[in-house]
Amino acid sequence: MNVIYAEIQQLHSPQYFLSSGAMQPNPEVPQRAERLLDAALKCGLKHIEPPDYGLDPVAAIHTPEYLQFLQNIYRRWGYIEGASAEVIPNIHPDRRDGAYPASAVGQAGFHMADTSCPISAETWRSALASAHTAVHGAQLLLDGAAACYALARPPGHHAARDFAAGFCYLNNTAAAAQTLRTRFERVAILDIDVHHGNGTQDIFYHRPDVLTVSIHADPVRFYPFFWGHASERGTGPGKGYNLNLPLPRGTEDSGYLKTLDQALARISAFAPQAMVVALGLDAYAGDPLKGLAVSTAGFGKIASRIASLGLPTLLVQEGGYLCPALGENLASFLEGFGPGSL
Amino acid sequence: MNVIYAEIQQLHSPQYFLSSGAMQPNPEVPQRAERLLDAALKCGLKHIEPPDYGLDPVAAIHTPEYLQFLQNIYRRWGYIEGASAEVIPNIHPDRRDGAYPASAVGQAGFHMADTSCPISAETWRSALASAHTAVHGAQLLLDGAAACYALARPPGHHAARDFAAGFCYLNNTAAAAQTLRTRFERVAILDIDVHHGNGTQDIFYHRPDVLTVSIHADPVRFYPFFWGHASERGTGPGKGYNLNLPLPRGTEDSGYLKTLDQALARISAFAPQAMVVALGLDAYAGDPLKGLAVSTAGFGKIASRIASLGLPTLLVQEGGYLCPALGENLASFLEGFGPGSL
Repeated sequence: MNVIYAEIQQLHSPQYFLSSGAMQPNPEVPQRAERLLDAALKCGLKHIEPPDYGLDPVAAIHTPEYLQFLQNIYRRWGYIEGASAEVIPNIHPDRRDGAYPASAVGQAGFHMADTSCPISAETWRSALASAHTAVHGAQLLLDGAAACYALARPPGHHAARDFAAGFCYLNNTAAAAQTLRTRFERVAILDIDVHHGNGTQDIFYHRPDVLTVSIHADPVRFYPFFWGHASERGTGPGKGYNLNLPLPRGTEDSGYLKTLDQALARISAFAPQAMVVALGLDAYAGDPLKGLAVSTAGFGKIASRIASLGLPTLLVQEGGYLCPALGENLASFLEGFGPGSL
Repeated sequence: MNVIYAEIQQLHSPQYFLSSGAMQPNPEVPQRAERLLDAALKCGLKHIEPPDYGLDPVAAIHTPEYLQFLQNIYRRWGYIEGASAEVIPNIHPDRRDGAYPASAVGQAGFHMADTSCPISAETWRSALASAHTAVHGAQLLLDGAAACYALARPPGHHAARDFAAGFCYLNNTAAAAQTLRTRFERVAILDIDVHHGNGTQDIFYHRPDVLTVSIHADPVRFYPFFWGHASERGTGPGKGYNLNLPLPRGTEDSGYLKTLDQALARISAFAPQAMVVALGLDAYAGDPLKGLAVSTAGFGKIASRIASLGLPTLLVQEGGYLCPALGENLASFLEGFGPGSL
């Protein structure tokens, strides 16, 4: 199996994370990618760099205003007297259908749902490379690969059509799924990050051709709070093509695997021709974000059940933060996914 | 004329104002009220304290969840490890009709549209007293007074049905207008604060019995950015009963008065039996928020034209920040409103 990763994904290095009113060090650090790459290589995966796919794959899932914003806001922010070094929003609309502001501060609030995704000078380049990493994985599947691991960092699944959130700017997983749609009629996304994949849900909420399934800590008391409830099932032609499976905080392997079986049954019924796994490793019991309590061995079991579907599968890295077992958790997943594919 | 003001409105003393990503001192300081009270007394107004009206007047315009939130969030926030001393939100919903979070952080984002209205231990008491100040003014009008000045601080016009914003928690102006509705069939609100009165608009957006008119700096490049555009005209039975008159930044007296005439013509056509003026003094040329450029003498002219409608009129203090002329601007307004009423 290949691990796809571009060195320039490292450049994005957010400093702060305004959490509960206080500035905190941002946990979405470049070292995450180093650790994950190292673990993938140790498992025998072969590293390849993605080619430049330009803007098309992200323009297919994000709005033009949002992409303009991401490309230009850092420069514009610099003109504001007394502004922070990184772009952090402070005012937000209560709905998306009102007027679109012209000011940098207004646009920051429109295009950023929270304060965890500061934008610095290198954010755009790294985020675009991260999306290309995922898109290249999809391309390899289109070319016949059975599986690939796209080391997408910064992550993507909280990025919606027109807003950044939760350390995410461009939705790598969605860009990959959309790319797979060029050949496959039905694509399934299974999101096993500890947080609900609200951005991915948003992008495909109206569509029946991409099934979105997410297993995550119950948002009623966990990020992203406003999205990820079981009642959110899709809309219009997409009704029934979004499945949220919230779990109680602290759920361990056995509870998790039972819910995973439900997710996989839904995916089987959909009969997709390919699958994208939004591979967060933060459901781990020792992850600093403390949502669920999956064990290192648990990731191997999760992977093995996913692999049993026998679908062309792209693994796209999402969350999972620095802790001693981060690399082992990835290794456990990759090994569980099937020695044959390594 | 009476100036209504409760000493406990002073207790709320927000420390910070997260603006463009940086912590700044909060300009909505208790000294504002001292200056304004002083100026009102010098003009010959008589100070009275409002009685306690309880929760009813604010429950008539805000949601039960929001009032619960305002009363309890400070205590709950204290349980969050590493949280700031004041409640400041960091994640926000993209719409209001989704699930309602149970967590303090989720609710803070749901009920606070921006970071300019931190909640501290005394916020609720002061905000409720500020609302009672406005409600008492309305009561005096119901009892036959021709005019009153309610020194409402913290201000209120950015507070919507279920969210705080722009230094505002409870919508004093809306509570007063709703109180006036117990006797008067049609009530008009004229908002001359430099910022659009988005909260007041939100509260009455569906209703034809309370006309809301706001003159303010164009939100396309000015707070509150997402609301206050001319295209927002009301909805359902309230269609046509909301009028926004955005002005270019830096508009001076002559331009302002021309637009005021438009506002007053609309109010006359509505034929209200009483009026509430959301009296911001921050359209002043020397106000630190720098939106419009009304002169001290200009406030007198504005007041005199408003008084010419001959309606029972409640003046409710909104914005206007510390600057050498703050007291003089109020005095100019009160004197322009008519020596007879002083």
